[in-house]
Amino acid sequence: MTLDKFFNANSIAIIGVSRDPNKVGHVIFRNFIDGGYSGRLFVINPNIESILNYHSYPSVLDIEESIELAIVAVPAELVPRVLEECGRKKIHNIIIVSAGFKEVGNMRLQRKLEAVIKKHKLSVIGPNALGVFDAYSKIDSLFLPRYRMTRPKEGVISFVCQSGAVGSSIVDLATSEGHGFAKFISYGNDIDVDESDLIEYLGNDEKTKIICLYIEAVKNGRKFLEACRKVSRKKPIIAIKGGVTEAGAKAALSHTGSLAGSADVYFGAFKQAGVIRAETLEDMFDYAKMLEKCIKPKGGRLQVITNGGGYGILAVDEAAKDGVEMAQLGRETVKGLRKQLSPIINVGNPLDLAGDATSGMYKTCIDAFMKDKNVDVLLVIVLVQTPLIATDIIDVLVEANDLKKKPLVVVSAGGEFTEVMRKNLEANGIPTYTFPEDAVKAVKHLVEYYNTL
Amino acid sequence: MTLDKFFNANSIAIIGVSRDPNKVGHVIFRNFIDGGYSGRLFVINPNIESILNYHSYPSVLDIEESIELAIVAVPAELVPRVLEECGRKKIHNIIIVSAGFKEVGNMRLQRKLEAVIKKHKLSVIGPNALGVFDAYSKIDSLFLPRYRMTRPKEGVISFVCQSGAVGSSIVDLATSEGHGFAKFISYGNDIDVDESDLIEYLGNDEKTKIICLYIEAVKNGRKFLEACRKVSRKKPIIAIKGGVTEAGAKAALSHTGSLAGSADVYFGAFKQAGVIRAETLEDMFDYAKMLEKCIKPKGGRLQVITNGGGYGILAVDEAAKDGVEMAQLGRETVKGLRKQLSPIINVGNPLDLAGDATSGMYKTCIDAFMKDKNVDVLLVIVLVQTPLIATDIIDVLVEANDLKKKPLVVVSAGGEFTEVMRKNLEANGIPTYTFPEDAVKAVKHLVEYYNTL
Repeated sequence: MTLDKFFNANSIAIIGVSRDPNKVGHVIFRNFIDGGYSGRLFVINPNIESILNYHSYPSVLDIEESIELAIVAVPAELVPRVLEECGRKKIHNIIIVSAGFKEVGNMRLQRKLEAVIKKHKLSVIGPNALGVFDAYSKIDSLFLPRYRMTRPKEGVISFVCQSGAVGSSIVDLATSEGHGFAKFISYGNDIDVDESDLIEYLGNDEKTKIICLYIEAVKNGRKFLEACRKVSRKKPIIAIKGGVTEAGAKAALSHTGSLAGSADVYFGAFKQAGVIRAETLEDMFDYAKMLEKCIKPKGGRLQVITNGGGYGILAVDEAAKDGVEMAQLGRETVKGLRKQLSPIINVGNPLDLAGDATSGMYKTCIDAFMKDKNVDVLLVIVLVQTPLIATDIIDVLVEANDLKKKPLVVVSAGGEFTEVMRKNLEANGIPTYTFPEDAVKAVKHLVEYYNTL
Repeated sequence: MTLDKFFNANSIAIIGVSRDPNKVGHVIFRNFIDGGYSGRLFVINPNIESILNYHSYPSVLDIEESIELAIVAVPAELVPRVLEECGRKKIHNIIIVSAGFKEVGNMRLQRKLEAVIKKHKLSVIGPNALGVFDAYSKIDSLFLPRYRMTRPKEGVISFVCQSGAVGSSIVDLATSEGHGFAKFISYGNDIDVDESDLIEYLGNDEKTKIICLYIEAVKNGRKFLEACRKVSRKKPIIAIKGGVTEAGAKAALSHTGSLAGSADVYFGAFKQAGVIRAETLEDMFDYAKMLEKCIKPKGGRLQVITNGGGYGILAVDEAAKDGVEMAQLGRETVKGLRKQLSPIINVGNPLDLAGDATSGMYKTCIDAFMKDKNVDVLLVIVLVQTPLIATDIIDVLVEANDLKKKPLVVVSAGGEFTEVMRKNLEANGIPTYTFPEDAVKAVKHLVEYYNTL
């Protein structure tokens, strides 16, 4: 099965492009125009002559050039006939965004579709799917206008999502927070291409460094396990499972028409296959950010430094809850820092610099932690509400991180002033978090991922 | 003990106002000037003649007028003498922001301070504290410049915080998200006024509707229990405890010099006293927002409506985990909605309107839920990435909420377009959340609070 054309096709037919700007086919067509897709684009609609200077063909069979990918956005009843034509035209890769099949109980139509796919050996994503967004090739079948859902910049996270709405809103949110993405795939009813195929493909995709996954049910458990086991050795897979309770599983059944299965079975499979399990959507992106930006730690011992005592305590509490080991500073480090810091500062873990901390004091400590072989990961809590922390704290943190010696994570909560600093740090490759608890939870998964490799 | 002057003093002396704009005393002085405090303000500093057209007095004893509140920002060693002068001047209420006492092991100085307080029967907040911010009177001893920490608008949440840094950064963050506050108190070493005194005072404060609490250790367990028990009947108290693990408790000891005590004892006391326990800072504000904005529900049965299937499933999963009961729509409601909605929509809970939902469909369903006596709380998940949801969804939600019949909560995740809608809804009294899990957790506490009253 070759999925590459879903992401790198050089010629694409969009089937069902309406003149109505609110209609799905129209929105998809606009995605390619506005997004800057550089391949050849063909419009199919037997009822119009042309649209925005594009000639409209009655059928793909009327196009002379060869086509590498078709995106189908016609009413459900017409989909089998359209696919039959794609088969005859030798279009192998097809994204079907149309809904109205298994998910609404229309098994007759679903089976008819299956038959055409089998007959022509087509490779199909969908139906009932948003389809594909590729930040590099600009292939974009997401029928959500760009003013509603901002398209992400090029990045290294790829997100495979059974639910289109979960996927698109999360990508929208993450984009507004500055994240980049490689690929986003909403695969809907998985009549043909399923999550395992996509995971395997992304495992070999050079642009993808992290795979995020939202699934309600997998089609083939053994295949899923094998794909994850193979890929998770190469890059982290973070998964959230929808329908983990009985009530949730029932809701999943009516959503994508698939039986969600026992949560315990899934969680066991995740563990076996090296998949990092996120409990919530928020956790998933917290983990992805850390795994994207941080280098591999040598071990799991965490050193916390803070200028807010309470935040240090909350970080230590969370570490104890999550089983994250706290570092014990080496004797030389303690001796050195005691000389350089005020005698009222307790050189321990957390190291609380208190409200009158300066960027210079942070630098002194961070330098020492970087040298201390008892420290593997640095959690730097820096609250910039106090006037003594100048903007040069950014330089201190970025310079330390640029050494690429140990993972460095920053926690900072606040309003506008804080946000400016955080964006700056993120742009320089440092993962930042608002709350110490979230940062520590993510550290746990960073450490575990590399530990089990 | 009368705490009122801490929040409503008509004449205030700031002791230790430096000319250096980075020094604590100077920042506090500027807070009153820039914040628009309307009472009389006196500056104390024996080393300068005047500052910004304010005459500088060598000591409070040199002021002829009576003073209702003193804010002390002199080096720790000088604090006992300054307090002695305050006592002689009959200034009863004193905020000490200076640090360098118990928390750094200086028990000698701490005891000296205690003696003066006892001798003159002073009422003291601090030392080692940010002190007080009152959004109404503009009393503001927070030595954090306004460009670093935005001051909140007038609101109904009051936040009592042992850790100044936790408190100020969280207030800064919450303010940037549009929250208002009534009072914020960081009480530091609690040499005199403690958390229990403050809780009791806020219980009687008309401006305060919700009390948030960050504590590492309480001074007097029985007093705390009694204060909370009494106040929680009148208004919700939401508390987060720092130092719940052994490692965290050890860190707390060096932070505020107080023994954090067993977490279980605290959690048991919270429960007994009707205090809502938050596990994380984020949870605390999620709960506060819901309790601030939502009316009292008649019962605990939750109805979920969504245009993103996956979000509905995650909400139902979280409800099952949290023990939130899902509503079972009445027969009449189901019959009515089946007539009005497309036959492919499963009229259940969650009610998934799917990707082609319109604002009109939401209105139809919400109207029906409002009438159905089997529904107590409405969770409306609305993802606005799809073009069919117009901005009139805001009118639909605000109109439904304005009926004041049932609590209505909105979940919406996304970028800029989503944020504009969310801010609009929040301004109209509807609590909004990015993730379904957070909203459901907050619903649980809304229901529980009113259930146990």
